[in-house]
Formats: sequence, C-alpha cells, structure tokens
Amino acid sequence: LFVLGIDPGLSRTGFAVLHQTGHGIGVAAVGVIRTPPDRPVAERLAELFGDVEQVIATYRPEEVAIEEVFVNQNLQTSTGVGRASGVAILAAARAGLKVFEYTPTEVKNAVTGYGKAPKGQVEATVARRLGLAAVPGPADAADACAVAICHLQTVPARRAVERAR
Amino acid sequence: LFVLGIDPGLSRTGFAVLHQTGHGIGVAAVGVIRTPPDRPVAERLAELFGDVEQVIATYRPEEVAIEEVFVNQNLQTSTGVGRASGVAILAAARAGLKVFEYTPTEVKNAVTGYGKAPKGQVEATVARRLGLAAVPGPADAADACAVAICHLQTVPARRAVERAR
Repeated sequence: LFVLGIDPGLSRTGFAVLHQTGHGIGVAAVGVIRTPPDRPVAERLAELFGDVEQVIATYRPEEVAIEEVFVNQNLQTSTGVGRASGVAILAAARAGLKVFEYTPTEVKNAVTGYGKAPKGQVEATVARRLGLAAVPGPADAADACAVAICHLQTVPARRAVERAR
Repeated sequence: LFVLGIDPGLSRTGFAVLHQTGHGIGVAAVGVIRTPPDRPVAERLAELFGDVEQVIATYRPEEVAIEEVFVNQNLQTSTGVGRASGVAILAAARAGLKVFEYTPTEVKNAVTGYGKAPKGQVEATVARRLGLAAVPGPADAADACAVAICHLQTVPARRAVERAR
C-alpha cells in the first residue's frame, strides 16, 4: 500500500508518500509545498491544489492520510489550515483516492506509543522507523511522515474489522 | 459588474449573483448548495467544488465576494466552514476570478449602516434593497446576497483609490 500523508497549511504543506515493505516502511517521496505569503489567498490555494495534484500524479498513492485541523488561538493560521486542508482533500477526492483523517493524538500514539509525546520524540521516532539518518525537515515534512505511518499501522486492524463484518 | 457572493459551509453554501443596474441592484441568481451530511468529507468537498464551478459557468460573474471565516466555539462547524471556503475560493481562482473577503461586521455595516445589526434586520434590508417581496431563504442565501451587496457598494470607492495611485 502506498499512502500519501499530508500535514496541511497555507504557507507550508508537508507531504510524504510511504509504503509498507516486507520488513518496514519505505519512503517514495517526502517534501514540502510552499506558497508565497505575499500573494492573494485564491492564488495560493490554486497553487497548492495544483502541487498536490502533481504529487498524486507522480507518486500514485492509493490512499491519503491527513492530520485533522487543530483550531487554535491563532485565528489566521487556523483559517489557512482549514482552507489548505479543504483544497488538499479535494485534490485527493478528484483523483479518486479515499481520505482518512487522524487527530494529532492518534498520530503521536501510533508513532511513539504515547499520545502526548513531545514533538522532538515524534520526529526522532519517524526518522528511525523510516531508516533515515536525519529527521526529514522542515517539521511539516516530518509531520506528514508521521500521519502516513499512523495510517499504515491502522490499515491491518481496519481491514480485519471490515472482513469480520 | 456581476458579482458572486458566497456564504460558505460544508452542509449549506449560500450563493447569489447580483449586478449593479442603473437604478439599483438586480438578482441574476440566488440559492444554496447542499452536500449530504452522511457522505465522506472528501466527497462533499468535491460536490461543492463542482457546484460552485457550475454556478460560475452558468452565470459568468466577474468577481467573487466571500464572507471571512468566523472561527467559533463549534470546532466541527469551523473546520467545515474553513474547508468549504477553501474549495469555493479555489473554484473562483481556477475560473480566473478575483476574490474579495469581507468580515461579518463589514457586511452588516455595508448593508444596514450598522456593524452590529441583528440578523433579522440584515435580512429585511437585503430583501428591500433587492426589491424582493420576501427574504431569500434559507439564511445562507440571504447572507450570500448581503456579502455581494457589500462588494458592489465597496467597488466604486476601491476603483477611486486605484485610480488615485
């Protein structure tokens, strides 16, 4: 299974295409989509949409995992994250991909076994589990890896539940 | 000038295509786009995007006015509004239309002359100014009319500023 993990944001959207191998998790792609802060929001969303479409067309993931929007005190950031996530989910939907959402706690729990793990621990665990010498940077790329790992781990259990129905 | 006003939401997105006539504001279209709450978010966003594209293709507005996302206590509604607005703005951007954002206070102020006007007063003023016998329903449609009216009113002043530069 090839899964596209997305950590959405208007200024930076992290993405990672990971796949389950016989003995671990392989990295097909990892990176960040940036949009210029000095441009109108409409233009930035169009750019983000086109870039996510491009990632999907290039790496052909089969499913998409995205971190749920966390609305915080910073109204402007929250609005940007909401809009960016809407556009990223739309790109996935139009490519015919199923989208799965995970809360930050679910992601941390899946990666480190502890839902309140500090950011540094999550990133170090991500690097180790992907067999990378260094943490993928910037943080958004590491977060995209984390949500993709979370999805890959959750899949076997979900498939079992579906079979049991 | 034909302007498309949008009041975004995942369950209901109000839209209104209004235009300035010699003696007032004319209504080309007004309505609501609904998406089924029991379907996955990805599917609903794709449906909303397609419907906004359809409205643009049918009524050929020249500019788009949208109410700024108001993040409130209800996290789920706020997330839905953010995503819906992202997708609506994207549809406008991909059609080559400029998008203008207005806060709820700016909209109320433009329509009624009072930024804290109650909802009922805004709706009644919208109906009167559009020469409609009744308030366009549901509320999302009336809100879309209000933001379009706000934009039509703001245009002359903005054009004057642009000329003066």
